[in-house]
Amino acid sequence: MPEPSGYTYGTDEAARSPVSLAELDELRGSVGLTSEDEHYLRMAADVLSPQAEAMVDTWRGLIAEQPHLAAYSAHPDGRPNPEYSAASKPRFAQWIIDVCTRPYDQAWLDYQQEIGIRHTRTAKNRTDDADAPDHIPLRHLLAFTAPLILTTKPFLEGHGHSPDQVERMYAAWAKAVVLHVTLWARAYTTPANW
Amino acid sequence: MPEPSGYTYGTDEAARSPVSLAELDELRGSVGLTSEDEHYLRMAADVLSPQAEAMVDTWRGLIAEQPHLAAYSAHPDGRPNPEYSAASKPRFAQWIIDVCTRPYDQAWLDYQQEIGIRHTRTAKNRTDDADAPDHIPLRHLLAFTAPLILTTKPFLEGHGHSPDQVERMYAAWAKAVVLHVTLWARAYTTPANW
Repeated sequence: MPEPSGYTYGTDEAARSPVSLAELDELRGSVGLTSEDEHYLRMAADVLSPQAEAMVDTWRGLIAEQPHLAAYSAHPDGRPNPEYSAASKPRFAQWIIDVCTRPYDQAWLDYQQEIGIRHTRTAKNRTDDADAPDHIPLRHLLAFTAPLILTTKPFLEGHGHSPDQVERMYAAWAKAVVLHVTLWARAYTTPANW
Repeated sequence: MPEPSGYTYGTDEAARSPVSLAELDELRGSVGLTSEDEHYLRMAADVLSPQAEAMVDTWRGLIAEQPHLAAYSAHPDGRPNPEYSAASKPRFAQWIIDVCTRPYDQAWLDYQQEIGIRHTRTAKNRTDDADAPDHIPLRHLLAFTAPLILTTKPFLEGHGHSPDQVERMYAAWAKAVVLHVTLWARAYTTPANW
């Protein structure tokens, strides 16, 4: 699979994270992410990677049916914006794969800052030169954590793993999602508040 | 059970929420909280209410073993602060019961703002006249969403409900927790960013 357009992971084009690796270590502790969870994220990668686009379709289905969410991927006047959705979809799918496979190191940390600012006035629409609202309020990112976690369970089931393995992959996924969204929130607050 | 000290739910002493009921409706949609979830939250109330203090003990155990979290309930110089922990514990337990039993109406919305500001410079320590750091950064609240969700599963199991019922109570709890934390984040951001 070719790299998605606008996917600048590990390159000089990505933002630098203002978060230190020591702060990241603290956050890993707060969410409870252990090396065992990383093992189960790698296991989940095998299950979720071939389904990543279908997962994005599920999430976008939820977004599409809620006008207050759909607005951010439409044109500013509300007209549908299929070009923007098509351009950003491969990156959204790649995010799922990255959650499960990337080492959570400096390059990964930097890219979470890049993803964060791509939801805000700082950089939304820039990557795809999109004509769309220029800022997604933080509450919508935070609230959508719930479907990002909960809708993933069915994608983990039915692929040959035991119920216990599914449960552990699911818990690891939940922790990882919360960690990612917490880092994205950095783009919305002052350093002292974040 | 008497009401916890400093628990101002539904009184004039609690903050007013700057969030409208229409915005709340949107957030309920974003997290996916339905009337069926509310049914399962009521079911969870019967299971969790008698265990609420034990759940708080579990979470505080996780906080106590991580210095970057423990600091916020200690004295500013790092000495343990058992008076503060004892004073705030009944309210933390009451929160679990409220998540499962309260209608998510204006009084509930107002109290989420009160809980939010009680984590920030605006009002931390005020309720218990506590001698402790005066602000918990947002990232620690957000990251701790993961244990608030994940450690609740075992408390739901083994109380006579079917695996399917447990799963539904668990999903409803996860959505509700995300909704609460999203509202608490309002105290950390500008209106335009939240």
